[in-house]
Amino acid sequence: MALLVQKFGGTSVGDPDRMRAVADHVARTVRRGDQVVVVISAMGKETDDLLRIAAEVSDTRPGREMDMLVTAGERKAMALLCMAIADRGIEAESFTGSQAGFLTDSTHRNAKIVEVRPTRVVEALAAGRVAVVGGAQGVSPENNVTFLGRGGSDTTAVALAHALGADSCELYTDVTGVFTTDPRIVSNARKMDRVSFDELLEMTANGCPKPAMRCVEFARTHKVDLHVRSAFTWEPGTIVTEEDPSMEQAIVSAVVHDADEAKVTIGGVADRPGIAARVFRALADADINVDLIVQNTSDHGVTDISFTVPHGELSSAISICESHAAEIGASRVTSEPAIARVSVVGAGMKSHPGVAATVFETMADNGINIEMIATSAIRVSCVVAEAQVELAVQALHDRFGLAEGPVYVD
Amino acid sequence: MALLVQKFGGTSVGDPDRMRAVADHVARTVRRGDQVVVVISAMGKETDDLLRIAAEVSDTRPGREMDMLVTAGERKAMALLCMAIADRGIEAESFTGSQAGFLTDSTHRNAKIVEVRPTRVVEALAAGRVAVVGGAQGVSPENNVTFLGRGGSDTTAVALAHALGADSCELYTDVTGVFTTDPRIVSNARKMDRVSFDELLEMTANGCPKPAMRCVEFARTHKVDLHVRSAFTWEPGTIVTEEDPSMEQAIVSAVVHDADEAKVTIGGVADRPGIAARVFRALADADINVDLIVQNTSDHGVTDISFTVPHGELSSAISICESHAAEIGASRVTSEPAIARVSVVGAGMKSHPGVAATVFETMADNGINIEMIATSAIRVSCVVAEAQVELAVQALHDRFGLAEGPVYVD
Repeated sequence: MALLVQKFGGTSVGDPDRMRAVADHVARTVRRGDQVVVVISAMGKETDDLLRIAAEVSDTRPGREMDMLVTAGERKAMALLCMAIADRGIEAESFTGSQAGFLTDSTHRNAKIVEVRPTRVVEALAAGRVAVVGGAQGVSPENNVTFLGRGGSDTTAVALAHALGADSCELYTDVTGVFTTDPRIVSNARKMDRVSFDELLEMTANGCPKPAMRCVEFARTHKVDLHVRSAFTWEPGTIVTEEDPSMEQAIVSAVVHDADEAKVTIGGVADRPGIAARVFRALADADINVDLIVQNTSDHGVTDISFTVPHGELSSAISICESHAAEIGASRVTSEPAIARVSVVGAGMKSHPGVAATVFETMADNGINIEMIATSAIRVSCVVAEAQVELAVQALHDRFGLAEGPVYVD
Repeated sequence: MALLVQKFGGTSVGDPDRMRAVADHVARTVRRGDQVVVVISAMGKETDDLLRIAAEVSDTRPGREMDMLVTAGERKAMALLCMAIADRGIEAESFTGSQAGFLTDSTHRNAKIVEVRPTRVVEALAAGRVAVVGGAQGVSPENNVTFLGRGGSDTTAVALAHALGADSCELYTDVTGVFTTDPRIVSNARKMDRVSFDELLEMTANGCPKPAMRCVEFARTHKVDLHVRSAFTWEPGTIVTEEDPSMEQAIVSAVVHDADEAKVTIGGVADRPGIAARVFRALADADINVDLIVQNTSDHGVTDISFTVPHGELSSAISICESHAAEIGASRVTSEPAIARVSVVGAGMKSHPGVAATVFETMADNGINIEMIATSAIRVSCVVAEAQVELAVQALHDRFGLAEGPVYVD
């Protein structure tokens, strides 16, 4: 008898038919002899609907009330799923974040889990019931309802699997697993059987949309293996686990991309200590998510600093840079909205230095100009023109032979 | 500075515009210097929508999960109202039934309030905030969410007004108050300035749809005066209060009707002790709401028993009577689906015996046949053909001169 945490995202429970399909799967798992804790997101686009009506009603939207509002979505979904499970002759009990023991801090709209005390979930399991827990929610020290933020249901699942010592944490979604690249762009993208936490973290940080990066970080920290799989085909998906140092590692595992990027360049900056710090502190204070930062070597004591931000934050970023331009002695602030980032990720890269060179050659062979370069131990990223990103993804996927299987380090 | 409980029903907060209109009213009340506790229902038809999706997903629909589901509606409404109030520069905090201290029994779908400990509401008021409480909800001894049933928001408001010692409990709705009769039927129906608990109880028990009968009972028991008024025109409405024995009492205050009635007659029953008990116990066990019961005088040791039930319960009632017919020696079970009840209510009737006679004369003058009669100390009810009920209401309203003002006992 295994204890499984099964997390279902919004699309997986998007309508009554889907709700029943998920209940069937939970029932099958229970009949097989396993204990099941379900973590559920709001149905379909319900969270978006709640945010939209809040915007219609209010301009201020205080965080405490927004959290009360959006958590209503998961509450509805979890009660409906329990009813559907009950129809199948299996007792199920729904639990809010508070009832499931998710103690968080008081940062409304984006609360952090402080502790998980799943007493009632354990009792439900001991009584032979399925526990269905509302995703992305908890309770603050002031006894207010808190929301863990978008994608928080994945984190709920991982935290609960850890607290319960579950045998597996299954993240059911609308894709069949983690792919070597975006299958919408590259038709022979391959579903990976396994991927390491480190690799998946680099992938999610560089454009792979699912699972949520925060959940992968949490899973890595607490060593909770994940199984990313489909709630539509129910086939085995991708196992996310720790790198086994004794095993061979793929040099390159995946190619990911992020088209929601824009570039800002501050030109002719004096190359003195503290200049960059001043600009990036101002950007951080304005909650702007600066991604890649590149500073060229100084030429006659002046340099260019370039960085990327999400499209939606470009205009704020430009005004902040312009307002600091005089102070830091910059001669100009320029921007380029139509850029994208393509990244090659692989744990074996650490011990295999040729990857970056192969990436650059592939780009050159395909006539793609590289505007910025950034690397980590297991990743090489290039910023290219947005119009060329799909070509770059396809070319790199082909060049590293990812459709056929991973290339291992010997 | 007065402490006011203001309850808003579903229509009053049916869309974002209405939500803002209610927030404006709350803000006006606060600026006038009063403390406000709001009790709110789910928006518009949201409770119906939740019940519909539950029926689509599940056949069994366990009570605990139904309560978790339907209370999501008030949760959404209360958070949105708090946001709209915050836009007006006034701090507001929403509270679930549990957070507001509504301790109930464990009867899911129709829980009873056991105690109200509104600690957090009191703290919010002390901090200068508006408290917005979700209607019709509480928490059971097992720490499960409970629902007080349809119309339960009125009860929440009254219980909270009592627990807080509020100066007034205002029930805002889509009508301007309690009327002498249904204004859709009688164009010169008059809004009553005052009505006693006893009268309003008889009215709600006999077809007057608002406020919910249970709330009026609670208000009478705890002596919480009500103010039934409009959330659309904001004009003063009807005060519901205790009868003042020193004041004059209206002989007839209102004419109410209920068209959702059907009649069952068990004919030729042996007139022996225990016969009626056996039938009505069986009906009660089947949860059938028997309303009027009339048994004619015995004729040669046999009698007819007639009673009325809501339309939806007629077929079950007939089968139960038929299955008991042999046992109680009944010769036949007949039914009549198209009937209606019209009732005349007035506290002064107690000391003024001619009312019933006037009712019967009015019916006769208008060619309306009376099928059943039932009376209480302050009410005379007649069952008539459904096709004649509007005529009966109009005739009685005219006959007692209710459009001009109450007729007082001297």
